[in-house]
Amino acid sequence: LEKALIIAAGKGERIKCISKEKPKPLIKLLGLTLIERVILSLKEAGISEVFIVVGYKKEKIVEFFGDGRRYGLRINYIENDEFQRGNGISLLKAKNYLKEKFLLLMSDHIFDEEAIKRVSNFELGDFEIGIVVDRNYPNFIDLGDATKVLVKDGMVVDIGKKIENYNGIDCGIFIVRDTAFKYFEEALSKGEDTLSGMMKEIAIRNKLKAIDFEGKFWIDIDTEKELKTAKKLLLKNLFKETDGPISRYINRPISTKITELLVNLPISPNLMTVISFIISILSSILFLKGNKFYFLIAGIIAQFSSIVDGCDGEIARLKFKKTDFGAWLDSVLDRYSDFFLILGITIGYSIYKGEFSISTFLIGYFAMFGSFMNSYTAVRLDQIIEKKGIKGIRFGRDIRIFLIMIGSILNKLKLLLLILAIITNFISVKRIFFLKKEI
Amino acid sequence: LEKALIIAAGKGERIKCISKEKPKPLIKLLGLTLIERVILSLKEAGISEVFIVVGYKKEKIVEFFGDGRRYGLRINYIENDEFQRGNGISLLKAKNYLKEKFLLLMSDHIFDEEAIKRVSNFELGDFEIGIVVDRNYPNFIDLGDATKVLVKDGMVVDIGKKIENYNGIDCGIFIVRDTAFKYFEEALSKGEDTLSGMMKEIAIRNKLKAIDFEGKFWIDIDTEKELKTAKKLLLKNLFKETDGPISRYINRPISTKITELLVNLPISPNLMTVISFIISILSSILFLKGNKFYFLIAGIIAQFSSIVDGCDGEIARLKFKKTDFGAWLDSVLDRYSDFFLILGITIGYSIYKGEFSISTFLIGYFAMFGSFMNSYTAVRLDQIIEKKGIKGIRFGRDIRIFLIMIGSILNKLKLLLLILAIITNFISVKRIFFLKKEI
Repeated sequence: LEKALIIAAGKGERIKCISKEKPKPLIKLLGLTLIERVILSLKEAGISEVFIVVGYKKEKIVEFFGDGRRYGLRINYIENDEFQRGNGISLLKAKNYLKEKFLLLMSDHIFDEEAIKRVSNFELGDFEIGIVVDRNYPNFIDLGDATKVLVKDGMVVDIGKKIENYNGIDCGIFIVRDTAFKYFEEALSKGEDTLSGMMKEIAIRNKLKAIDFEGKFWIDIDTEKELKTAKKLLLKNLFKETDGPISRYINRPISTKITELLVNLPISPNLMTVISFIISILSSILFLKGNKFYFLIAGIIAQFSSIVDGCDGEIARLKFKKTDFGAWLDSVLDRYSDFFLILGITIGYSIYKGEFSISTFLIGYFAMFGSFMNSYTAVRLDQIIEKKGIKGIRFGRDIRIFLIMIGSILNKLKLLLLILAIITNFISVKRIFFLKKEI
Repeated sequence: LEKALIIAAGKGERIKCISKEKPKPLIKLLGLTLIERVILSLKEAGISEVFIVVGYKKEKIVEFFGDGRRYGLRINYIENDEFQRGNGISLLKAKNYLKEKFLLLMSDHIFDEEAIKRVSNFELGDFEIGIVVDRNYPNFIDLGDATKVLVKDGMVVDIGKKIENYNGIDCGIFIVRDTAFKYFEEALSKGEDTLSGMMKEIAIRNKLKAIDFEGKFWIDIDTEKELKTAKKLLLKNLFKETDGPISRYINRPISTKITELLVNLPISPNLMTVISFIISILSSILFLKGNKFYFLIAGIIAQFSSIVDGCDGEIARLKFKKTDFGAWLDSVLDRYSDFFLILGITIGYSIYKGEFSISTFLIGYFAMFGSFMNSYTAVRLDQIIEKKGIKGIRFGRDIRIFLIMIGSILNKLKLLLLILAIITNFISVKRIFFLKKEI
């Protein structure tokens, strides 16, 4: 599948107060316009050519995207001056441009990009259409305005805003065989100019296949309230299943708030990685001051750097800027941070005590090595267990840095190093036996 | 492709002095019998059922392999009591057992297992046979005894031991459509009972497709001399392209010699990993003795452990015992070795000097961290560059341990730590910028 059609011609009257001089598709949501999110999701799914049906304030959209080169795909525009009529007209205007199977999307629907990847691989017969249907629709959906569907044996048998018997909601994501245009035209000739009305024409012919929505979220943004909900959903989606407990309950709730602010600035994910690294180095230097007060400050700053360390990945995901290099840089600089932090604590404590005791240095060695081995074994473990689908032993940087903060606040640095040395090395050794048992 | 046929019925007269009471396929070569190597190569290529044509001393082969469960595939036996006749008879005996496409191999041909993986995916039309042909045959081949082929436009047009016009050698690896049995029978009815004679019958019909041998080595073992050559080839094949310079020119030549001895003992690769680790720990402990003589001994032992560290992988490859866990354990224990070695050197040097200087400890910290980062960045780098086919910056453990030996022998431990600290950290930082540039 190479092509996609995005309908972006409508006036979006219910959200006018926000959009002001811009058409609705150009409303910003966490650093990207609504339609940019749709286009970048398509790009990630491997689509190489996009057709946008424009109407209301079309010149603004054309000016914004140009030929699409900046996004790594080709963008073409189809004009629909009848945008005051139903949105089915926009679909019909595309008839001469799409001579194969294509994706059909709305410019104001935001969704987990995994959904598109699944839909792209959906098999269709002649004249058929696949429609993504949410059968466990969440409670924020405006049921009065939503397009409902009735699914029976995998086929949509009824569709419309006002049907009474329904068991799912139309998510606004379709995969269409070009041959189906024939039926759209028949629908129009009967006076039906809305997309759902045209789809009903397909459903009646038993050609409308239901595709279960299995992504994490989707939302149709028609109102300011829905725009806010969409923001919440996107931010919530940044919480990762692999997050450790400290990350989940302390770091992530704060870092997503910071990300929400930063995402509108021209800050790249890699710059954030470096900023977090610098904050951590600052903490290491403060430990060298060698007194209680600075230990407390340094501990808090270390924890802060650990929080900020989440922002690089969050910005990357929100702005479709994930790269292999970024992930690598993040993990390498994390190791440098760990090294300098533990070095700072070891020397700082020695300065505080006024003596360079060999026991402190030895414990420092082991704490540093154990921290490192935790990350090292985790990386290599992931490589292996990913293949086998086994769940590993999680003990991550989030917990280590949190322990550093606690130890620093309590001014128990040697005990802290000892605890780190024991726990981290214990976990590493345990992983060896865990893996031996599992595989 | 699921099935393979191995011909193991012949008397192997030219190698009798070695085989004594055993049939030739049961001759041992670096810890495995010849036919075990063929079977394990098939297993690695995904073959699930093997048919062995047995004749001469057949009960010994059946007793050795049983139903094949021990090897993770099913083994069936086909009897050929006419093993005094040509080896084509053995092929014909299999006719009723193989009703689909299958691999055909000789029990006395040893080859790089990559070859089988390639051949398995080779496409065949009806009645067709694919024959692996070596067109750059090495000089140890006994041209008088080899089966030569003449290849034109990808098809073998002539084949035989005595043809004068040839441009390749038959490697004894075939992929056969069962429908081709018809032609083998026709050949037999003309009095042709050798495999090459029967293949000539296929060649005449323009159904014998040449598959270029692209593996690293293959050899047909008919004589004691060829058995020795095979051993050399297998050992040479243990040198890896990713080996660093010290590994290539010092460690590998010695470790393969050790492996050659160990491969006949019941020592598992993981046991070797642990033994190498223990030797390295011994070296670390000797450093703690804190005097010149013990430094020298410890340095040499460290280098010895680095050499022995190659044996685990070599044994695993020679005996088809490579596992993900083994590779992981090896790399994790290497990190522990590095840690204890540098710790031992740092403390040993302090004992030698009679003072625990902060500069020694700091340099030790950086040397340890740098060594670790070298391995860490390499692992993560590999993950990324494997996808992109970029060559990374190599600086491995072989060089680090070699430097440790030199520094220990010269009794320049602090300088050694300083050099390690600088080089390893320099390489790690360089990798960051290298990767940024490359991707």
